[in-house]
Amino acid sequence: MIIVMKAGAGKKDRDDVVKRIKELGYKPHIIHGTTRDVIGAIGDERGKLVLQSLENMHGVENVVPILQPYKLASSEVKREPSRVRVGDSVLIGGSQVVMMAGPCAVENETQIIETAKMVKEAGAVILRGGAFKPRTSPYSFQGLEEEGLKLLAKARELTGLPFVTEVINPESVDLVADYADMLQIGARNSQNFALLKKVGQCGKPVLLKRGMAMTIQEFLMSAEYIMSEGNQGVVLCERGIRTFETATRNTLDLAAVPVLKTKTHLPVVIDPSHSTGNYHYVAAMCYAAVAAGADGLIVEVHPDPEHASSDGPQSLKPKKFEAMMQKLRLFAEADGRTL
Amino acid sequence: MIIVMKAGAGKKDRDDVVKRIKELGYKPHIIHGTTRDVIGAIGDERGKLVLQSLENMHGVENVVPILQPYKLASSEVKREPSRVRVGDSVLIGGSQVVMMAGPCAVENETQIIETAKMVKEAGAVILRGGAFKPRTSPYSFQGLEEEGLKLLAKARELTGLPFVTEVINPESVDLVADYADMLQIGARNSQNFALLKKVGQCGKPVLLKRGMAMTIQEFLMSAEYIMSEGNQGVVLCERGIRTFETATRNTLDLAAVPVLKTKTHLPVVIDPSHSTGNYHYVAAMCYAAVAAGADGLIVEVHPDPEHASSDGPQSLKPKKFEAMMQKLRLFAEADGRTL
Amino acid sequence: MIIVMKAGAGKKDRDDVVKRIKELGYKPHIIHGTTRDVIGAIGDERGKLVLQSLENMHGVENVVPILQPYKLASSEVKREPSRVRVGDSVLIGGSQVVMMAGPCAVENETQIIETAKMVKEAGAVILRGGAFKPRTSPYSFQGLEEEGLKLLAKARELTGLPFVTEVINPESVDLVADYADMLQIGARNSQNFALLKKVGQCGKPVLLKRGMAMTIQEFLMSAEYIMSEGNQGVVLCERGIRTFETATRNTLDLAAVPVLKTKTHLPVVIDPSHSTGNYHYVAAMCYAAVAAGADGLIVEVHPDPEHASSDGPQSLKPKKFEAMMQKLRLFAEADGRTL
Amino acid sequence: MIIVMKAGAGKKDRDDVVKRIKELGYKPHIIHGTTRDVIGAIGDERGKLVLQSLENMHGVENVVPILQPYKLASSEVKREPSRVRVGDSVLIGGSQVVMMAGPCAVENETQIIETAKMVKEAGAVILRGGAFKPRTSPYSFQGLEEEGLKLLAKARELTGLPFVTEVINPESVDLVADYADMLQIGARNSQNFALLKKVGQCGKPVLLKRGMAMTIQEFLMSAEYIMSEGNQGVVLCERGIRTFETATRNTLDLAAVPVLKTKTHLPVVIDPSHSTGNYHYVAAMCYAAVAAGADGLIVEVHPDPEHASSDGPQSLKPKKFEAMMQKLRLFAEADGRTL
Repeated sequence: MIIVMKAGAGKKDRDDVVKRIKELGYKPHIIHGTTRDVIGAIGDERGKLVLQSLENMHGVENVVPILQPYKLASSEVKREPSRVRVGDSVLIGGSQVVMMAGPCAVENETQIIETAKMVKEAGAVILRGGAFKPRTSPYSFQGLEEEGLKLLAKARELTGLPFVTEVINPESVDLVADYADMLQIGARNSQNFALLKKVGQCGKPVLLKRGMAMTIQEFLMSAEYIMSEGNQGVVLCERGIRTFETATRNTLDLAAVPVLKTKTHLPVVIDPSHSTGNYHYVAAMCYAAVAAGADGLIVEVHPDPEHASSDGPQSLKPKKFEAMMQKLRLFAEADGRTL
Repeated sequence: MIIVMKAGAGKKDRDDVVKRIKELGYKPHIIHGTTRDVIGAIGDERGKLVLQSLENMHGVENVVPILQPYKLASSEVKREPSRVRVGDSVLIGGSQVVMMAGPCAVENETQIIETAKMVKEAGAVILRGGAFKPRTSPYSFQGLEEEGLKLLAKARELTGLPFVTEVINPESVDLVADYADMLQIGARNSQNFALLKKVGQCGKPVLLKRGMAMTIQEFLMSAEYIMSEGNQGVVLCERGIRTFETATRNTLDLAAVPVLKTKTHLPVVIDPSHSTGNYHYVAAMCYAAVAAGADGLIVEVHPDPEHASSDGPQSLKPKKFEAMMQKLRLFAEADGRTL
Repeated sequence: MIIVMKAGAGKKDRDDVVKRIKELGYKPHIIHGTTRDVIGAIGDERGKLVLQSLENMHGVENVVPILQPYKLASSEVKREPSRVRVGDSVLIGGSQVVMMAGPCAVENETQIIETAKMVKEAGAVILRGGAFKPRTSPYSFQGLEEEGLKLLAKARELTGLPFVTEVINPESVDLVADYADMLQIGARNSQNFALLKKVGQCGKPVLLKRGMAMTIQEFLMSAEYIMSEGNQGVVLCERGIRTFETATRNTLDLAAVPVLKTKTHLPVVIDPSHSTGNYHYVAAMCYAAVAAGADGLIVEVHPDPEHASSDGPQSLKPKKFEAMMQKLRLFAEADGRTL
Repeated sequence: MIIVMKAGAGKKDRDDVVKRIKELGYKPHIIHGTTRDVIGAIGDERGKLVLQSLENMHGVENVVPILQPYKLASSEVKREPSRVRVGDSVLIGGSQVVMMAGPCAVENETQIIETAKMVKEAGAVILRGGAFKPRTSPYSFQGLEEEGLKLLAKARELTGLPFVTEVINPESVDLVADYADMLQIGARNSQNFALLKKVGQCGKPVLLKRGMAMTIQEFLMSAEYIMSEGNQGVVLCERGIRTFETATRNTLDLAAVPVLKTKTHLPVVIDPSHSTGNYHYVAAMCYAAVAAGADGLIVEVHPDPEHASSDGPQSLKPKKFEAMMQKLRLFAEADGRTL
C-alpha cells in the first residue's frame, strides 16, 4: 500500500500515519516528494485491506493498493495453467477447446434428450441445461427443479455426456451435486458469498460466471472464495458485462480472456449466448473466443427456439449449431488446438 | 407487445406470427406501414414475456414491450404511497424523513452501544449495523453473526431504537428475523431470488438495496419477488450504481427518487455512504436526497473510523453526523417535512 | 509516480528503470517490499505523463500516478472559490444560486422573446437558447445560426438578461463571442481540443459541459485547456453521464458537485433537463442540485413543448417553471443562499 | 413510431394525439388494448424524430421508435457490402484482411520511416501515424502537425504504403487531405458534427472511430453525417467503449462486428491497441477480431515504446508485431480470407 499525504499535511499527521501503520503490523517507509510525502507500508499486501481505513486520518489524501488481494487464484502463486476435470472424460484447460451446449432450461424429456444427442453429434462434450432457473420475474417459469436434474441424468446416461447445471440456493447444493458433474454459479449469484462457500465444499467442479458489473479483480476474489474452502476446480466464465450499449443484451468483454490468462492459472470459457442475447451474433463470438484463447464455450441450443420457455431469442437451432461447429474447428486448428 | 416485422417479410411470415400470437392467448392486430408491418399483441402485458420468443421467428425484426412487468409494486395498481412500519415507532413513507444510522459492522458492545446512543441523540430513529457481512474477500472480517444480533438487540433495549441489519443466506433469515426489526438485502444479493422469496415469507419489513448494475425495472421486479410471497413491507434503497467514474466508489443515481416515485408506491431511501465511498461527500448527498424527495437515509457512523473493521473511509464521525443532521433538518423543513 | 516492479524482477530490470527515471529528469527512490520492489519517481507529478511509458519496460508491473495532472483548475493551486462574471450583472460562484433558463433551440422571435420575459419574471438571471445545434442526425433541425444569435441579442435588449449559447466549430467562435455573454461547449465537444483552445482565446466566459463518458479528472483537464490559453472564466456543468440505466436519458452524477468542490475552485452548475431527458424529473433534480451545493442550474423551458423543434420531452412549461422556482427558493434559503 | 397512451388516458387525450400526428404528416392508427391504447404513426420513420415531442402531451406514457434513423449507411438501403479504396492499391471490405500499422505519433524521420519499412515487411498494407494529436492534457505533446504529414508522405514514397492520419479541426481538413490517403476521425471527435461535415466534402476515404460512450446507432448516424455530404468512403472502427472495468483501458466491444455487419454495408475494422491500452493483450484481440469477421485492424507499432512520446504501454515492438502477423494469417485463412 502507498499512503499519499495531502500537500499541506504536517509532521504530526505523518507521525500519526506512521504509528498506525506499525500498529497494524506493517513497516512504514517515507518518501519526501517535491509537493507532498508518500508513505509505503511494507508487508504482505494481501491482508492489507484494513490499511484502507487510513484514508480517514487527518492529512491523508488517499491510499493506493499495489498488489491484488487474491492468492490461490493468482498466477503469481501457481504459474502453470490448471486443468479442471469434468466427469470422467473431459478436461478443461488443455489443448482441446471444450464445447458445452444445450437448452437454457430443461423443459421435458424429449427436449433434453433430443438436444443432448444432437449437440453430442455435432461435437459438444458437456451438456448444459437449467433445472433451477433464476428469473428476473417471479411470474416466469422457474425450472423443473429435481425433476429437471433427473432428466439431465437420463440424457447423460443415454449419451455419455457429463452435464453442468446451475445452483441458486446454498440449501440445494448437495442435491444438485448428487446429480451434476459440474455446478454453475450464475451471474446474479457471483457475489452470493454464502453460495460460493457452500459450492467450495461440495467436491464437484464449478463453472463460475462473472457478474454483470463485476471487475476482473472481484471475479477472481469470488473464485478465491470457492478455492479457500478447498475446491480448486474452478472454471471462469465471461458472459458479458452491463454497459450503455443496447444493441446486444450485454457487452461481451473478450479482452477478459488474455487479461485472465495473465492474472490467473484457472481456465476461462466464454458464453456468447447470454452476452449477445441474439442468436445471429453467437457464431461470430464463438470464433472470436477461440481465437482469443478461450479454453471453452457454453452455448444455448434449442430444437424449437420459438417455443422455448426461456431465452428463445438467443438459442441456436441444431442445424446452425452444426454448421458453426464445423467452422469453429478450423479456428481451433489455426490455434494449434482441437475441438 | 409490438412485433416489428422486417422490411422484406412476406405474407407467410406474417401469418405465422399471427398464428403464434393466438396460440399464446393474445389477440393480434396488424398495422400496415409504409416500409414494413407491425403487429400488436393485445392482452395483459405482464404475462407476455413469452412473446419475446417470437424474435426467433422468420421475418421478425424485433419485439418491443409496451408495459412494465411488475404488478404489486406498480403505482398503476396502487396509487397512494405506501408507508412501512419499522418497530413500534417508526413509519417510512410519511411526512417524517427517516434517518437510519450506525456502523458498517457491529464490532463489540461498547462500539455499538455508544454509536446507538449518539445517533439517537442526533436524531436518528433506526439503528443500522451489520452482523453478517458480505465481503468481497474471503480473508476479510465476516461479521460477529448471532453475537452481533444480540449486541444490536441490547442497543435497542438501551435506546429504544429499532434496528435494521443485513441477511445474506436464506438459511439464516429466521434467525435474523427473530432479532431484527427490519431485514436488509444487500446490493450483491439484490437478484438472489432464493433469498428474496425467503424474506418475502418472514413477516418483517425489508430494506431492499438496488444492485450495482440493476435497472430501475429490475429493482422493482426484485421488490415484486418479495411482495408476491405476501410481504408488502418493502422499502427501496438506492445506493449507487457502477459506472466508469472512479472519483466516487459508485455513482449515486439520485434521479431514481423521482423515477421510482412515478412508477411505484413503495418508499425510497438513499444510502450516501456506499454510493460515494468517502465521508467528505456524504453530507452533500444527504441534503440532496431529502430535497429530491427521498423518504429516508441510511448513513454509516463510526466513533473511530480509522480503526473500523470495514468501510472506515466512508463513515462519519459523531460530531460530523450531528452537524449534518442540523443542516439536514432545514432542508426537510423547506420540503414541508420533519426530520 | 510509483513504479511497481514485478514479483520476479531482477536487479538489472530495476537498474534500467532507475536509469530511465533519471533520464526523464526525476529522482528515483526505491522501496524494497516483501514480495516486490516499488520505485518512487520524485519531481513535479504534473509533467510526468511521460513516465507512463515505463510500463513497457522489462520487469515493470504497472505505473501508478499519485497526483492529478491539472494545475490552473486545481484547488491546490488556488484555494478560494472563483467567481465568474456573465454580462454586467451576474456572478456565478457566490451566494446567489444562478438560474439559466430558456428553450433548447431558438426557433423564432416570438418564441425566444416570450420565453425570455417569462423566465426573467420567474427569477432566471441568464437566458439560454441554441443557435447552432449539434444534432445526432444530419436530417434534424440544425439551428437558426447567426439569425438565432440576433434574436437572442434582441431578447437580451428587451429583458436585460445576458445569454449563453453553444458554439460547435472553432471557425464560428468569434462570431458567437460577438453576440453572446457566455459560450457553451456541449457534451459532445467536451474533448474537441481545437474548439477548447479557441474559446480559451475569446475573452468571454465559458460554460463547459461534461462529456457523457468523461471522468471528473478529464473534465478538469478540458477546463485546463481553456484556462491554459488565458481564459479563467470557466464554469463547469454536470449534465449526466451515460450508464446502463435507461429510465432516464443519462444518469445525473450529483456527487460530482462535492467532488468538484474539493478538487477545483471553479463554479459548478447542474443541467437537470439533459440529464433526465424528462420534464417530470427536472424539478426534483433542481432541488437536489441546490441542496448539494451547486452554484447554478441550466433548465430548458419552452412555451409549447409539444411543438418544440428539439428536446420537447424534457422542457418545462412556463407555469411549471414558475412553481418550481418558488419551491427552489426555499432550498436555496435553507442553504443560506439566495435565488 | 408507436405512441403508448397512459392507462387512465381519456378520449380527448387520444383525439389530441391523433390530431397532432396528422398535423405532422403521418397517418394515425389506433389499437385498443386491454389496459391502454397505443397509436401507430404510419409514414417514413426516418423523419419522425419530431414525433418524440408527443411525449409531452397529456395522457401520453411514452413514444417508441420502430425503425433506425439512418438511410445511406443502412443495409436495408444497400444490401451488398461496400468496399472502400485507400490509395491505389488497397481495398477495405473484400477478401483481404487489411492491416494498418504504425506509431501513435510521428516523432521524427527515422522513427516513421523505419517503422513503415518494418510493418510493410511484416504484411501491413496501410501506414498509420498521428501528426495532429488530440491529447487529454494541454501540456502533452500535440504532434508535429504539417511537418508530420510531410514525414508520412516521405515514408509512403519510400515504401509504397498509403497512410491514414487523424484530423482534429475542420480548418485543417484540406491540409490533411492534401497529404493523406485516408482521414481518421478520432473517438473524441466522433460527434464533432462540424468536422464530420467537412470530411464529408473532402473526397478522401474516412476511418471513423466509435466514441467511448457511443451506441451503435449513434455510430451509424455519425457515418450518415459524412455520407450525407457526398462521401461514401466510410470505414467504421470499433476501438473500445468506456465501462466500469479498469483492467483494460476500454472494453473492446467485439460483438459490434456482427451487429454492424447486420445493420450496415460499411466495412468494419478493429483497434486493439486503444481498446486494451496494453500491448500484452493486443495479439489476442487481433486474432479474435479476424475470427469475428472484421475487415481490418489498426495496430500501434513503435521501434522503441519505452521512449515513445505517447501511448508507449500499448505499442508493439517490431518483433512482436511480426510474430503476431504470422499467426494472424492462419486465422484469416481459417476464415477463407487472406492477410
